[in-house]
Amino acid sequence: MTKRIDFQVDPTAYRHWKVSFDGPVAWLTMDVDENGGLFDGYQLKMNSYDLGVDIELADVVQRMRFEHPEVKVVVMQSGKDRIFCAGANIRMLGGAAHSHKVNFCKFTNETRNTFEAAEADSGQKYIAAVKGACAGGGYELALACNHIMLTDDSSSSVSLPEVPLLAVLPGTGGLTRVTDKRKVRRDRADVFCSTEEGVRGKRAKEWKLVDEVIPNSKFDATVVERAQEFAAASTKPDVAEGITLTPLDRTFHEDGSVTYSTVEVQADRAGRTVTITLKGPEEAAPDDMEAFTAQGAQAYMLRLARELDDAILHLRLNEKELGLMVFKTQGDPEAFAAHEQLLLDNAEHWLANEVLQYWKRVLKRVDVTSRSMVALVEHGSCFTGVLAELLFAVDRSYMMEDEFEGDNRPIATITLTGANFGPMPMGNGLTRLQTRFLDDDAALAACAAVKGEALEAAEADEAGLVTMILDDIDWEDEIRIFLEERASFSPDAMTAMEANLRFAGPETMETRIFGRLTAWQNWIFNRPNAVGETGALQRYGSGVRGEYNMERV
Amino acid sequence: MTKRIDFQVDPTAYRHWKVSFDGPVAWLTMDVDENGGLFDGYQLKMNSYDLGVDIELADVVQRMRFEHPEVKVVVMQSGKDRIFCAGANIRMLGGAAHSHKVNFCKFTNETRNTFEAAEADSGQKYIAAVKGACAGGGYELALACNHIMLTDDSSSSVSLPEVPLLAVLPGTGGLTRVTDKRKVRRDRADVFCSTEEGVRGKRAKEWKLVDEVIPNSKFDATVVERAQEFAAASTKPDVAEGITLTPLDRTFHEDGSVTYSTVEVQADRAGRTVTITLKGPEEAAPDDMEAFTAQGAQAYMLRLARELDDAILHLRLNEKELGLMVFKTQGDPEAFAAHEQLLLDNAEHWLANEVLQYWKRVLKRVDVTSRSMVALVEHGSCFTGVLAELLFAVDRSYMMEDEFEGDNRPIATITLTGANFGPMPMGNGLTRLQTRFLDDDAALAACAAVKGEALEAAEADEAGLVTMILDDIDWEDEIRIFLEERASFSPDAMTAMEANLRFAGPETMETRIFGRLTAWQNWIFNRPNAVGETGALQRYGSGVRGEYNMERV
Repeated sequence: MTKRIDFQVDPTAYRHWKVSFDGPVAWLTMDVDENGGLFDGYQLKMNSYDLGVDIELADVVQRMRFEHPEVKVVVMQSGKDRIFCAGANIRMLGGAAHSHKVNFCKFTNETRNTFEAAEADSGQKYIAAVKGACAGGGYELALACNHIMLTDDSSSSVSLPEVPLLAVLPGTGGLTRVTDKRKVRRDRADVFCSTEEGVRGKRAKEWKLVDEVIPNSKFDATVVERAQEFAAASTKPDVAEGITLTPLDRTFHEDGSVTYSTVEVQADRAGRTVTITLKGPEEAAPDDMEAFTAQGAQAYMLRLARELDDAILHLRLNEKELGLMVFKTQGDPEAFAAHEQLLLDNAEHWLANEVLQYWKRVLKRVDVTSRSMVALVEHGSCFTGVLAELLFAVDRSYMMEDEFEGDNRPIATITLTGANFGPMPMGNGLTRLQTRFLDDDAALAACAAVKGEALEAAEADEAGLVTMILDDIDWEDEIRIFLEERASFSPDAMTAMEANLRFAGPETMETRIFGRLTAWQNWIFNRPNAVGETGALQRYGSGVRGEYNMERV
Repeated sequence: MTKRIDFQVDPTAYRHWKVSFDGPVAWLTMDVDENGGLFDGYQLKMNSYDLGVDIELADVVQRMRFEHPEVKVVVMQSGKDRIFCAGANIRMLGGAAHSHKVNFCKFTNETRNTFEAAEADSGQKYIAAVKGACAGGGYELALACNHIMLTDDSSSSVSLPEVPLLAVLPGTGGLTRVTDKRKVRRDRADVFCSTEEGVRGKRAKEWKLVDEVIPNSKFDATVVERAQEFAAASTKPDVAEGITLTPLDRTFHEDGSVTYSTVEVQADRAGRTVTITLKGPEEAAPDDMEAFTAQGAQAYMLRLARELDDAILHLRLNEKELGLMVFKTQGDPEAFAAHEQLLLDNAEHWLANEVLQYWKRVLKRVDVTSRSMVALVEHGSCFTGVLAELLFAVDRSYMMEDEFEGDNRPIATITLTGANFGPMPMGNGLTRLQTRFLDDDAALAACAAVKGEALEAAEADEAGLVTMILDDIDWEDEIRIFLEERASFSPDAMTAMEANLRFAGPETMETRIFGRLTAWQNWIFNRPNAVGETGALQRYGSGVRGEYNMERV
């Protein structure tokens, strides 16, 4: 059995990042421990990173928002001399399985998106203060910041050398952000992305690769100045104190199952299926946001989000053969709605906002998870609001109709709330209901008209909220046949099909990164020119160039 | 040496399609000759197709527009009993090299896009009249038609069985058109795309998979009726007579080079480079569209487009190791502009419109060509209007600055015309200049301000129209180094990088098909679960199911 990758980390245990605070400005210093790799067989030289480094970064970004709401500007910088960051570690990539590479890239993309969106979502703006070489994934870190400052000296440059050097893509958003965020002219982007040594100084600014180029002698002072300027100009309300993200309450079992306080993950390795059951609240909703804040990380809505997030990440990386995720809920729909309503009613409150933003991110994480996903709306379930969003995130759903013999749980219902009509957009910028009913305004209006009503099967079916409703006679057989069949299909074909069907409608930089860029990178990661014995990734550092089949496909 | 694939075909030699005409309605019957496969080793059973079948279809669609402008509705139907079309031939796919599969899919996608756009571009609406099984690529043919009629009997259904049956995607636009064109609800799309037997009758209509379901007894009559209705409602002006697309004047040489009347293709297999030189007109522009029509297929602007189109297709399929295309022009810019202006001034004239629409398609074909592309703006060149579009289609461009010793050709210039500001949009819906200057209105306005002026190097550089200008001292070395370096990179990495950098800005169904869907399909086409010895494609028809590695990546 391989080592379990843990996505929970504690700041006291960080090996690769240092964080310090100066009022509204946080200083985030990347100082990777060469010997702190997640796996054996490589050293993290020159501030290169592996998944372990990124798990810490994701934790920093998450805690910044919950534990340090006073922060308005985060300055990302390097703790090394003459190097900002050399990108993803090549030896790690060269040695990793295809599935690890792909999942690693997905997680790093999610983390980049999270700090990129922090400005719009939470008023925390990330600045990259680049001294030294900023190459490949290092420049992709900077690209996801919303302001890039580059020092003007002979060793400082930005570059995306993946294509010429490694025969792979800058796949952590690099290509997409160069053209679509930075709006670099495409022929210049072509030159930039095929030049190993990158671009520095004035040209980097002229080509829009960075926002500022600053003489080395004035660099540090200018960064401080700029950080203070941005902080002063921020419209983020002042919040004196955050909450602490305490460790999750969870138990891992031998058979792959995991027990959290509100989430039960039940693995069936033989059936290649995992059931994720989310439990409704046991306690009443807090009276107000003061009470909610006092509960902190124990508040139900936050705890549920954290546990679901951790469960999905765990399954993605550690249980790759559980190809089918079955989502269930159990609990009182009205009690759940009350917990959620407190947040929706107080969306201006910093913590309510953060919890809602977090739910948005968790649901997006579900959207881009490469597993077949189904929701079962059983009697006794609470698919309400953000939990109902799961019904529209999964690939299909089944709902129990009428009473089932021997089942005395409350009849299955679905309840739409305000959470389904705006605050949880997908990566394509639409709500899941808008994506579901693309250009069908009548269907959307019909959904809006039943907001707040607990819809039983026939009504939910009529409103188009579930794929299929089944009664006591058909339920068991139909579900069993579906689960068996789905789990027997080629996982690759499923992944690719789902990646196409889930994102109808408009595209955004985000969908393009997960859709187009990722798909091309996955392809590359399967091609002998990159990963074969004489491929560039394998030969990197050997002094011998990759040997390529020169046929264009 | 493998057999050269020829994209030129004559209707008298069609083996797979029959076309008949009834006033404004054309009847296009697919009746594939089992023994007419392009290669040995497979039979084209059940109206399945290979590249040869599609080359004929592309020819039909092209001639429909030029030779039969009287046609307003094209009815696509099957000449076989109980089968509309079974899709791409599986044995052909199973036996083909990765590069052939990918290029085959690209060409079929381009053909689908062409008849799908015929309604908007030329007033020719394609209807699919589906009797019998319409499966996989067969349904993708129907999806690209703008009206789908399905007969209601037990053997007629539409299906996309690729994923469950073959472990590959419906990659010829199928997944994208289901969600984005037909707007099938995504969970229904999930059910549909994972059900081998597909959907028929009322459900097919209810799920928006077809537009009409008609009882078998009334089907033929209803199709005639509908075709006549659409023809009567068409706003396409009546045109009595088309022009004939006479055979191209071309000579293939042993070394891979090709000589056309206006295009010179010079292959350098050792350097993995091919130079495509487009020649300006030798004769004066026709006085008016009557004179142009009299010239027919010999008219310079049409001849040039046909020859360039053929050259690109030839290189894509037959010279896969020529990874770098160098575009040059030679001729009088003003003479070229006069030829082009006649078309732009008469865009309402049916033939002027068709020639301009064809240029649009040829340029789009360049956009999605998986080769590195560069344009060299040399002295004596005529990068004007649609030829200047090539500068914005390629990955980068170099331009000669000032006089070169011993070179007495007219100084290099670039001239923008009306063709650069609207009639030739890319697949993303933007002009190439809009894509180049994404969100940079000032740069666009500056380009508009110099329309019609022959810009020398410094001015062209100032306007951002070229990547680099070089004088006599630097030209030769810089170009040589670039060509050598570019031709040494991994072709896969280049293809993927270019596919990402070329299409900044908004996405459309078209860019999504070439970008996202294609990339995922390419990935699948490299995965053992599909193409390995125990993969589904290889095992198809053996009675044994594919054996899969069940890991999700």
